[in-house]
Amino acid sequence: MGLLAAGIGAGIVAIGAGLGIGMIGKAATESIARQPEASGDIRGAMLLTAVFIEGVALFCAVICALIIFLG
Amino acid sequence: MGLLAAGIGAGIVAIGAGLGIGMIGKAATESIARQPEASGDIRGAMLLTAVFIEGVALFCAVICALIIFLG
Amino acid sequence: MGLLAAGIGAGIVAIGAGLGIGMIGKAATESIARQPEASGDIRGAMLLTAVFIEGVALFCAVICALIIFLG
Amino acid sequence: MGLLAAGIGAGIVAIGAGLGIGMIGKAATESIARQPEASGDIRGAMLLTAVFIEGVALFCAVICALIIFLG
Amino acid sequence: MGLLAAGIGAGIVAIGAGLGIGMIGKAATESIARQPEASGDIRGAMLLTAVFIEGVALFCAVICALIIFLG
Amino acid sequence: MGLLAAGIGAGIVAIGAGLGIGMIGKAATESIARQPEASGDIRGAMLLTAVFIEGVALFCAVICALIIFLG
Amino acid sequence: MGLLAAGIGAGIVAIGAGLGIGMIGKAATESIARQPEASGDIRGAMLLTAVFIEGVALFCAVICALIIFLG
Amino acid sequence: MGLLAAGIGAGIVAIGAGLGIGMIGKAATESIARQPEASGDIRGAMLLTAVFIEGVALFCAVICALIIFLG
Amino acid sequence: MGLLAAGIGAGIVAIGAGLGIGMIGKAATESIARQPEASGDIRGAMLLTAVFIEGVALFCAVICALIIFLG
Amino acid sequence: MGLLAAGIGAGIVAIGAGLGIGMIGKAATESIARQPEASGDIRGAMLLTAVFIEGVALFCAVICALIIFLG
Amino acid sequence: MGLLAAGIGAGIVAIGAGLGIGMIGKAATESIARQPEASGDIRGAMLLTAVFIEGVALFCAVICALIIFLG
Amino acid sequence: MGLLAAGIGAGIVAIGAGLGIGMIGKAATESIARQPEASGDIRGAMLLTAVFIEGVALFCAVICALIIFLG
Amino acid sequence: MGLLAAGIGAGIVAIGAGLGIGMIGKAATESIARQPEASGDIRGAMLLTAVFIEGVALFCAVICALIIFLG
Amino acid sequence: MGLLAAGIGAGIVAIGAGLGIGMIGKAATESIARQPEASGDIRGAMLLTAVFIEGVALFCAVICALIIFLG
Repeated sequence: MGLLAAGIGAGIVAIGAGLGIGMIGKAATESIARQPEASGDIRGAMLLTAVFIEGVALFCAVICALIIFLG
Repeated sequence: MGLLAAGIGAGIVAIGAGLGIGMIGKAATESIARQPEASGDIRGAMLLTAVFIEGVALFCAVICALIIFLG
Repeated sequence: MGLLAAGIGAGIVAIGAGLGIGMIGKAATESIARQPEASGDIRGAMLLTAVFIEGVALFCAVICALIIFLG
Repeated sequence: MGLLAAGIGAGIVAIGAGLGIGMIGKAATESIARQPEASGDIRGAMLLTAVFIEGVALFCAVICALIIFLG
Repeated sequence: MGLLAAGIGAGIVAIGAGLGIGMIGKAATESIARQPEASGDIRGAMLLTAVFIEGVALFCAVICALIIFLG
Repeated sequence: MGLLAAGIGAGIVAIGAGLGIGMIGKAATESIARQPEASGDIRGAMLLTAVFIEGVALFCAVICALIIFLG
Repeated sequence: MGLLAAGIGAGIVAIGAGLGIGMIGKAATESIARQPEASGDIRGAMLLTAVFIEGVALFCAVICALIIFLG
Repeated sequence: MGLLAAGIGAGIVAIGAGLGIGMIGKAATESIARQPEASGDIRGAMLLTAVFIEGVALFCAVICALIIFLG
Repeated sequence: MGLLAAGIGAGIVAIGAGLGIGMIGKAATESIARQPEASGDIRGAMLLTAVFIEGVALFCAVICALIIFLG
Repeated sequence: MGLLAAGIGAGIVAIGAGLGIGMIGKAATESIARQPEASGDIRGAMLLTAVFIEGVALFCAVICALIIFLG
Repeated sequence: MGLLAAGIGAGIVAIGAGLGIGMIGKAATESIARQPEASGDIRGAMLLTAVFIEGVALFCAVICALIIFLG
Repeated sequence: MGLLAAGIGAGIVAIGAGLGIGMIGKAATESIARQPEASGDIRGAMLLTAVFIEGVALFCAVICALIIFLG
Repeated sequence: MGLLAAGIGAGIVAIGAGLGIGMIGKAATESIARQPEASGDIRGAMLLTAVFIEGVALFCAVICALIIFLG
Repeated sequence: MGLLAAGIGAGIVAIGAGLGIGMIGKAATESIARQPEASGDIRGAMLLTAVFIEGVALFCAVICALIIFLG
């Protein structure tokens, strides 16, 4: 049962990270194209929020990995 | 049963955090591109709401982690 | 059975909070970019509604946490 | 069985409240940005509808909490 | 089985009320921002439809609460 | 089995009524904001369709309530 | 099994009627706001299609009610 | 098993008819508002397609009703 | 098992026909409103595609009806 | 088991054909309204793609019908 | 079990082909209406991609048909 | 169990290929209509990405076919 | 159980690759139509991201193929 | 059970990566078409976020591969 959870959970984590960072990356590239001279500020906000998501996603992926070894 | 919950729950937490912070990050980068001189206020609102989501998401991820050790 | 509920429930709570506060944060950053001088009023409305959601979400997350210890 | 219901039900309640109040908060911040001088009327309508949703959501969350203690 | 229904049903009721009243509240705040002088008529229509939804939602929530005590 | 149906059915009824009347209320408030002088006709059409939905929804909710007492 | 069907079926009927009549009511109120002098024709088309949906929905709701008494 | 099918099938039939005729009714009312002098042609096309859907929906609802009596 | 299939299958057939013909009817009424003098050509294309869908839907509904008598 | 597949499969086939041909019919009627003099070319492309979908849908519906007689 | 797969699989194949070719046919008819003199090039690209989808869909439908005879 | 997988998997493969190539074909026909003189470059990019999807889809369909013979 | 996973997993992989590369191919063809002289840069970005997706998809498809031979 | 998880999990990982990188690639190609001279900055932001997603996706795919060998 634990293995089932680990595999599907890992897949859902990837969806979460993909959708979240994908939306940010989409907005960032479009914003830079609209305001090239503000690319520093944009890249800062992009990294800040992408790292928030990356952190939660890795934390959750580690939970899934833990299940394989402990479960 | 608990392990199943931990893995899938962790995955869904990642979707929640990804969608929420992704929407905020998307809006923030676009807003900075539209009004570079208001980037301080925008970054403030961005951080405030992103931290709200991050808090709930980590709280829920910890619940999932607790299930592995207690369940 | 209770553990299953706690994990999945916690995940769904995170989606609810993420979507809700994400929509508010998205609108707030875009609104500040459109009207920087009204950022006080906007931040007030943003906090008021975000706190409503945060309250329900934490209440529901606590229910999920209760299930682990009582269930 | 009751615990399963309590956890998942609490999660779904949070989605309902999040989506509903999120939509209202999104519209309210955008409306204030468009008409800062009507922020009193807007905040009134915002609170009125947000409280309707908050009421139903808390009522439903209490049902879920009841299930843990009675079920 | 009845408890399962009560919890999940209560959650779905909250989604219904949240989406419905959320859409109305969203439209009402945006409408007041567009036509502040018609806020009386708008608030009237808003309350009328919100109360329709609130009525159905509370009726359904009471059904769910009944299940706990009778089921 | 009947109780399961009553709870979940009641929840789905609330979604149906919420979405339907929510769409109508949203359109009505926006229409009044666009044409305040036609608010009588608009309120008439709004009530007519909202009552259609309310009728079906209450009929279905009563079916769900019947299940508790008969099932 | 029949009771399960009656409850959930009734709920889904309400969604169908809600979405369908909701879309019509939304369009009718917006159309009257755009062309107040054509409100007679609009109300005619609105009633004609709403009654089509109402008919099917009530027919289906009666099937669900039949299941309780016969099933 | 047949009763389960009849109830849920009837519900889904109502969704199909509701969505389909709802879309047509929505377009018809909006079209009449845009071109009041072409309301004859529009009403013709509206009735023609609505009757197509109504026919299929009633045929399917009768199948569901048959299941109760034969199944 | 066959009866379950007949009921739910009939419901899904109705969704397919409803969505498909609904989209066509929606486009046709809007097109006639935009170009009343081309209503002949539009009605031709509308009937041609609606009949394609109607044919497949009736064929599938007959399969569902066959299941009741043969299954 | 085969009968279950035949009924539900037939329903899903109808959705596929309905959505696909519905989209084509929608676009065709709107295109003719925009360019009445190109209705020959448009009708050609419409028929070509609608027949592709019709072919696949009938092939799949026949598979479902085969299941009833062979399964 | 194989028959279940054949029926539902065939249905899903029809959705895939319907959505894919439907999107292409929709775009092609709209494109011809916008640029009637480029109808040759448009028809070429339309056929090329529609045949790609048709190929995959028939390949998959044949797999489903194989299951009936071999499974 | 393998046959179940083969049938449903083949269906889902067809959805994947249909959606992907459908989106590309839609964009390509619209692009050619907008810029007929760039049809060479557009057809090149269209083929390149369509072949990527076709490759993955056929690879996955072959996996499904393998399951019938090996499983 | 492994075969079930291989077939459905392969299907989902095809959806992932189809949606991802489809979105990229759609944007690329539209971009080339808007800026034919930048087709080199556009084709570069298109290939870079399409290959990222292709890589993950093939890696996942190979996992599914492995399951057939090892599982 | 583990094999089931590996196959489906791998498929979901591919969806996550496909959607995420697809959104980024779509935005990047469109942005380069709008601002060819900023293609360096755009390609930088594109790569940065695509690599974030690629990292999470490969990490999750490796978890799925691990399940086959360990589970």
